[in-house]
Amino acid sequence: MTIPGEMRALRKTRPGPGADLEEIPVPEPGPGEILIEVDAASICGSDIHIYRWDSWAPDRIRTPMTFGHEVAGHVVATGPEVHHIAPGAFVSAEGHVFCGFCPQCRRGRMHTCEKMKILGVDFEGGFAEYVVIPERNAWVVDKRIPADIASIHDPFGNAVHTVFIDGGAEDVVGSTVVVLGCGPIGLFAVGISRACGARQVVAVEPNDFRQGLAKQMGADVVVDPGREDPVEAVIQATEGHGAEVVLEMSGVPKVIDQGTRMLAGGGRMALLGLPGEPVEIDITDQVIFKEARLFGVTGRTIFRTWELTSTLLATGMVDVSPVITHRFTFDEHQKAFEAVVSGRSGKVIMTP
Amino acid sequence: MTIPGEMRALRKTRPGPGADLEEIPVPEPGPGEILIEVDAASICGSDIHIYRWDSWAPDRIRTPMTFGHEVAGHVVATGPEVHHIAPGAFVSAEGHVFCGFCPQCRRGRMHTCEKMKILGVDFEGGFAEYVVIPERNAWVVDKRIPADIASIHDPFGNAVHTVFIDGGAEDVVGSTVVVLGCGPIGLFAVGISRACGARQVVAVEPNDFRQGLAKQMGADVVVDPGREDPVEAVIQATEGHGAEVVLEMSGVPKVIDQGTRMLAGGGRMALLGLPGEPVEIDITDQVIFKEARLFGVTGRTIFRTWELTSTLLATGMVDVSPVITHRFTFDEHQKAFEAVVSGRSGKVIMTP
Amino acid sequence: MTIPGEMRALRKTRPGPGADLEEIPVPEPGPGEILIEVDAASICGSDIHIYRWDSWAPDRIRTPMTFGHEVAGHVVATGPEVHHIAPGAFVSAEGHVFCGFCPQCRRGRMHTCEKMKILGVDFEGGFAEYVVIPERNAWVVDKRIPADIASIHDPFGNAVHTVFIDGGAEDVVGSTVVVLGCGPIGLFAVGISRACGARQVVAVEPNDFRQGLAKQMGADVVVDPGREDPVEAVIQATEGHGAEVVLEMSGVPKVIDQGTRMLAGGGRMALLGLPGEPVEIDITDQVIFKEARLFGVTGRTIFRTWELTSTLLATGMVDVSPVITHRFTFDEHQKAFEAVVSGRSGKVIMTP
Amino acid sequence: MTIPGEMRALRKTRPGPGADLEEIPVPEPGPGEILIEVDAASICGSDIHIYRWDSWAPDRIRTPMTFGHEVAGHVVATGPEVHHIAPGAFVSAEGHVFCGFCPQCRRGRMHTCEKMKILGVDFEGGFAEYVVIPERNAWVVDKRIPADIASIHDPFGNAVHTVFIDGGAEDVVGSTVVVLGCGPIGLFAVGISRACGARQVVAVEPNDFRQGLAKQMGADVVVDPGREDPVEAVIQATEGHGAEVVLEMSGVPKVIDQGTRMLAGGGRMALLGLPGEPVEIDITDQVIFKEARLFGVTGRTIFRTWELTSTLLATGMVDVSPVITHRFTFDEHQKAFEAVVSGRSGKVIMTP
Repeated sequence: MTIPGEMRALRKTRPGPGADLEEIPVPEPGPGEILIEVDAASICGSDIHIYRWDSWAPDRIRTPMTFGHEVAGHVVATGPEVHHIAPGAFVSAEGHVFCGFCPQCRRGRMHTCEKMKILGVDFEGGFAEYVVIPERNAWVVDKRIPADIASIHDPFGNAVHTVFIDGGAEDVVGSTVVVLGCGPIGLFAVGISRACGARQVVAVEPNDFRQGLAKQMGADVVVDPGREDPVEAVIQATEGHGAEVVLEMSGVPKVIDQGTRMLAGGGRMALLGLPGEPVEIDITDQVIFKEARLFGVTGRTIFRTWELTSTLLATGMVDVSPVITHRFTFDEHQKAFEAVVSGRSGKVIMTP
Repeated sequence: MTIPGEMRALRKTRPGPGADLEEIPVPEPGPGEILIEVDAASICGSDIHIYRWDSWAPDRIRTPMTFGHEVAGHVVATGPEVHHIAPGAFVSAEGHVFCGFCPQCRRGRMHTCEKMKILGVDFEGGFAEYVVIPERNAWVVDKRIPADIASIHDPFGNAVHTVFIDGGAEDVVGSTVVVLGCGPIGLFAVGISRACGARQVVAVEPNDFRQGLAKQMGADVVVDPGREDPVEAVIQATEGHGAEVVLEMSGVPKVIDQGTRMLAGGGRMALLGLPGEPVEIDITDQVIFKEARLFGVTGRTIFRTWELTSTLLATGMVDVSPVITHRFTFDEHQKAFEAVVSGRSGKVIMTP
Repeated sequence: MTIPGEMRALRKTRPGPGADLEEIPVPEPGPGEILIEVDAASICGSDIHIYRWDSWAPDRIRTPMTFGHEVAGHVVATGPEVHHIAPGAFVSAEGHVFCGFCPQCRRGRMHTCEKMKILGVDFEGGFAEYVVIPERNAWVVDKRIPADIASIHDPFGNAVHTVFIDGGAEDVVGSTVVVLGCGPIGLFAVGISRACGARQVVAVEPNDFRQGLAKQMGADVVVDPGREDPVEAVIQATEGHGAEVVLEMSGVPKVIDQGTRMLAGGGRMALLGLPGEPVEIDITDQVIFKEARLFGVTGRTIFRTWELTSTLLATGMVDVSPVITHRFTFDEHQKAFEAVVSGRSGKVIMTP
Repeated sequence: MTIPGEMRALRKTRPGPGADLEEIPVPEPGPGEILIEVDAASICGSDIHIYRWDSWAPDRIRTPMTFGHEVAGHVVATGPEVHHIAPGAFVSAEGHVFCGFCPQCRRGRMHTCEKMKILGVDFEGGFAEYVVIPERNAWVVDKRIPADIASIHDPFGNAVHTVFIDGGAEDVVGSTVVVLGCGPIGLFAVGISRACGARQVVAVEPNDFRQGLAKQMGADVVVDPGREDPVEAVIQATEGHGAEVVLEMSGVPKVIDQGTRMLAGGGRMALLGLPGEPVEIDITDQVIFKEARLFGVTGRTIFRTWELTSTLLATGMVDVSPVITHRFTFDEHQKAFEAVVSGRSGKVIMTP
């Protein structure tokens, strides 16, 4: 493998909206690091904030910097002190770089490391022909998974983590699972719940394009909250008892409140969607008297969810092809970002 | 045992505040029921709502009715179809009468039965010389537990359930446990956490009398929220990491919000105190990014918490004597209720 | 519904092999009991011991007695103190009659009640036109389940309990599950594991007829232990790492030992098959250094497994039709028992 | 800190019994490694096998090599790529060096790494004035813990792991815990169970010296198996129901069998003691019908048990001083090993 001196990279060159495809030097892997030739990179919702320079992006991102963190490719070089992964390996990147020494890490909760640094947010990212990550952040991908699908291990892992958080497989088997909000992670969660023993999966989503995707991913019931009350729809679908599992992917305060109202006694609600403001919850009737369990969810457990992700994708237990709606080259990055914000898309993947 | 025809009973004779000690016929146990001669009955916060006729009481209580549900005594007669408990047995009452056939009951969650009826709320209660309950709602008390302490199995069981909800023993061992609000259940929770492996117990309580009780029950740190910020106090007591376990016993919206702010990453908050209005929570920063777990708690699991309660009380692992601050006869019921609302009391017990 | 005075019942009339179809009075339901008109009854391995009068049967069974415990039918009468189930209800019987008051029952482990009495073993059973059981032992069957399939709730529940024992859904998702011995319960376990997220299911079974059934139930790999070493086969199917889950259904000491040898580090083995003698296990290498988890399994949790059973059967998540290989009338009982012991059968069902 | 060129080290200089205290060069830390000046090192049972050159030692140990792995001391130098631990830190060593990349490691089970290397067994150990370990194998010790006690984090961690394996805190709270075999790890387990909510702790131990230590560590009942049948003793101490938790520390086949016989229904037995031969177990009656749970236990989870160990030792929740019966210098190593095998000792600690 010959590694060129320069590469194309999609970069935030200065504060403000947009991004520039630039030629920059190919980075070199330091001790414990590997250099990956990127085969595919998919666009996350957080990349949209960086692209548009809104929400938390202006406070967090320092320019110039390449962004993008959902990335897969082939290892082409390794730095010193790399002992397990060799050039030629096909890997997907866990973008959360953890310290390994804080109390969270030492408890096996590396995904909530107190000193977390994130690929493409806190250091140079993966919307580029080459990217450097720590060896231990690389997951060797099952060979049955094609390159573009390999790049979605990160968001698919979010979905796995949300469905199964805190021993949740037990909750899912034989249960009604409601997915509130069918962006890509919600759509993955529909497929995962279906593959792993849910009695029925109810998807709630206002966008008709995504309603269609939810059906393709295996939702038994798709609720359009513009046409019917989702709480009533779930109560009816469960013969009055409520859903044992609610997966909140929207981040909308009103939807979070609705989520608590459709839970069965002892039900579990996982919260992944990030509301921009405090949320009012009827703690007494919807949490305490029901003995509901509310779980915050962020990232993915490292690396148990990666193993499950590879299994679900490689065996065909979950077929994500309906969700991969668009593919573009880095040159077409503007079209790619437009596709994401259009609302007529699932997951959008870029290739060099 | 000779059973008289009449007995004294503390009753709500009509809608409105107050209660009357009346002579009424001793009830007869029906099929599957037992008649208990009451040795002691303790006063619950919900009894105060019934006494004062405020909050939910006017909507729920039908007069005339004897109230009171925290009760212990000797079985003096049994109805037909009683096969396991015989006259002479000393028992404490689980006041939640469950159907056994709804989905909650069939899942072993009898304490959230969809058709629950509550002793002294939905049918004749235990502030009386005699009371009838279903055989299966009786818990035979360990002989080492004195009669008055036996009457607190119900609220002590609430505390056990709150400390250990959802496999929580694992959370408690080696952890910082914060108890927010030191009424009797909070005070019991302090003692239980101390006895079951907590690293340190922090009690937050504005009332100085109860601060003293919290110390006697084993709190390592007692925080007066009028003098210092409880969130900062807990962050400091945990060297900046936050508490692994928060037990919310106050029902005050602001305190619930504070509870989420003092949680460590992956921490668990159990919610027992009932707020009278919706509560604003910073879901994004305090629940999701922390991966906090919020658990609603009501009643007590039937009967696993009873077994633990008996063990903790009978072995002396938790010494509740500091919490039992007042004892009165039924004749002195007015003084008893005054003691409860005075704020200068722990648990108040009445005897015939 | 007119209930006749007499009914046909398949009975052990005296110690010794065989059974007689006799006319006996229809039983009357006592307090808390219901009378069921039997629609279908399936034959369990323990019924074979009773029929042949071998193994534990001579020590346990008192003649004369009707046997049979896997039974479904319509409620036709109820005794006093029956409040939840009415005539007309279609139910399947949980044959384990528990006391509700021993420590096991009070911990929610009614299926290991210290005073257990078993239908058709300790009291009059269900190979008859009518049978009496306690109301609380009746499970109302989902209407989508046909009558004959309804009679297998009991053994299907054994399989559910074995697959999911002790929070085992977590173990199954994404894992290799090995089923050792493909009698009916093993075959059900193959289907359940497949439906609930297993990565691959390996069935080990010497009988070629049952090997075929295992494939029909969804086994990815079927191993004939007469032709290849099952330990090596599993190690190979897991790329050298071993299986995360082993379900032992054979009761053969050598097979139990093999089960421990095919486990992955941290793997879980559930033991349902009953060996007739002590079993030698290599505790040091196969249990301790691997940190294997070995779980004894008996009966089914009451009633959580019943809910799962109804869901898996009613939704079509598991299609058990390949396993139901024979149907006979009570008159043909001799043929029915011959079919069971022939080794060329799955589940054998009798109807009146 | 001046580091000398040479140091004293207790070494296996050639195959065979015994050990020699030699002068050898102080090792240098490589990338990711730290150099510790040893303050204390305690003797493990496995060190006895190495010393005597029996059991597994001749097959595993390559001479010449320094042995010893239970070690604590001050960091005096760090190699390149060490970012979290600095000279001056006081640390205790996790002797299991894991790869971080095998399936076991990626599942968070680093203590059963498929490529494990052990300090003082597979590479140069800690019975020396200086020792090198990977940075990530160092645990910074709570300052309240004195140096000699710091050296027992490893075996105390074994005890923590045994008591709490697989969510076992839930099992321990309110339960009867039996410890079979009171070597140092068994004695620590007595203290830990006592501190973390056990109802009663029963210690079974034939050696009268250790019986005395068990009492000092908080055992409620001490059984001498030479004088009474331990199964009967436990059945009696639990009013006929059996113990919910049995911790097997002896490795004696007969005692393991007894352990299964004293378990309550649903009870949990943790197996840490290593039998030298296969063990016969009555699977049917003692495991299956009881639904017993048998857990193999090895090492300690990394690093959750370390956090608990530090907490229990630093807070005084467990006072291990009775167990530390002997202290010697490296020069007195012969006496130290004699003390260990004498049977009149608890933990034996050596200092430079």
